[in-house]
Amino acid sequence: MHRYNNKTFTCVGINNTISIIRSKRFQIEKVLIIKGSKADKDQRINNAINLIKRDLIQKVNDKKLPSNFKTQGVSITFSGDLIFDEISNFENNAHICLLVLDRLEDPQNFGQIIRTAECAGVNGIIYSRHHSVPLNETVLQVSQGAFVNMKFYEVINIRNELIKLKKNNFWIIGLENSTNSRPWYSVDYSGNTALVFGSEGYGIRKKVLETCDFIATIPMQGSTNSLNVSAAISAVIFEKLRQKLGKNNAFDT
Amino acid sequence: MHRYNNKTFTCVGINNTISIIRSKRFQIEKVLIIKGSKADKDQRINNAINLIKRDLIQKVNDKKLPSNFKTQGVSITFSGDLIFDEISNFENNAHICLLVLDRLEDPQNFGQIIRTAECAGVNGIIYSRHHSVPLNETVLQVSQGAFVNMKFYEVINIRNELIKLKKNNFWIIGLENSTNSRPWYSVDYSGNTALVFGSEGYGIRKKVLETCDFIATIPMQGSTNSLNVSAAISAVIFEKLRQKLGKNNAFDT
Repeated sequence: MHRYNNKTFTCVGINNTISIIRSKRFQIEKVLIIKGSKADKDQRINNAINLIKRDLIQKVNDKKLPSNFKTQGVSITFSGDLIFDEISNFENNAHICLLVLDRLEDPQNFGQIIRTAECAGVNGIIYSRHHSVPLNETVLQVSQGAFVNMKFYEVINIRNELIKLKKNNFWIIGLENSTNSRPWYSVDYSGNTALVFGSEGYGIRKKVLETCDFIATIPMQGSTNSLNVSAAISAVIFEKLRQKLGKNNAFDT
Repeated sequence: MHRYNNKTFTCVGINNTISIIRSKRFQIEKVLIIKGSKADKDQRINNAINLIKRDLIQKVNDKKLPSNFKTQGVSITFSGDLIFDEISNFENNAHICLLVLDRLEDPQNFGQIIRTAECAGVNGIIYSRHHSVPLNETVLQVSQGAFVNMKFYEVINIRNELIKLKKNNFWIIGLENSTNSRPWYSVDYSGNTALVFGSEGYGIRKKVLETCDFIATIPMQGSTNSLNVSAAISAVIFEKLRQKLGKNNAFDT
């Protein structure tokens, strides 16, 4: 039994509420809607709440409510299983892409990464249980409902998981801030890949880096030399998507 | 005289403080450092404050200070000119890249975009004066000092500026969430380009979209269909960089 499984979370906002209800993955405990708010008038919200029991929905006045709830007009409280145990239950797909986050610290970054990863077709996110931001309400909130379509694997030892993935025909690609590594677009991202990114301050730990088959970098063009990890992930996973889509049509020049 | 020019701003953090001092673009009014903090012991901070007058630096105890300042250990108060008047003073470079933000609303996004743009070698950011988040302290703070290396152009009418840029040999490329547009990597980003992105909720306005030479999109691979604008910008400007760098070496496969 995982520490996040069957725990109760509350998220606010139209996107989160729709995604959580539609996923049918969670037990909905309560939906609060502010009377007359944008959410109250939103047709997608009305369609979504038709899928759940009437007595779970409360229409409220906006007195004495937290300000982030007031802005969004809707909140949803739910419980269920967020974390998957085994990194194995993928279909027989030859192009699995996993993100591996080695000690990410910032919940805003984690949430944004989930959102970007879901849009780019990433199949799952592996992150370290210790010294990492946990999968908390802020993270889920920032992901704007994208978390419901993502598989999360919280692991004790990232290095061991990567060694297992290598045995299962995954290429391990580490991305780090380095002048000696090859540029990110020179890596062949076809096949099963695990893309490893390090923490905001310290990058990928040495023991983890040693398991990588390739190490790539995004060469900085300015003076600040500090690309946000979530922006770096966006650049890399959409390069992977470019390589995949580009092969199937005439657009790759 | 622009409304942001000669205004006083305060930012916190080691990166911001170093960038602002080193740029020599601003008048430094005050640097506060918490005694014994990480910033106080940071060699780069100590090198940077050697560049300014001793009486502008105050070492303080951490009693009764705002929490974000306490975490960072250093704050800097400065004034100077943030906004440039004329979109013209670029060197004779044939590969100018400008970002154009049509009514961006979120200061976190704006700050992140500045940071990503600086890392990717973007030459300037044009944004609409009305109905946009202004260049405020939050935006500067989130940019982690990248704003000092970026040229900002706050304009009344984005459409008119784009028409002027077209006359000056710029290609105008609009990025929007659309199933009919060509994929983002099929656009040739060489030459002078203006990359146009719309607001978080509403995309690019029709009048602005009409001035674009090309319209491209990032096709969504998941179910949420809502890539954050800052993540979309990262994908596009690093694709531009890939096209540029890939031509000059053997890595482009």
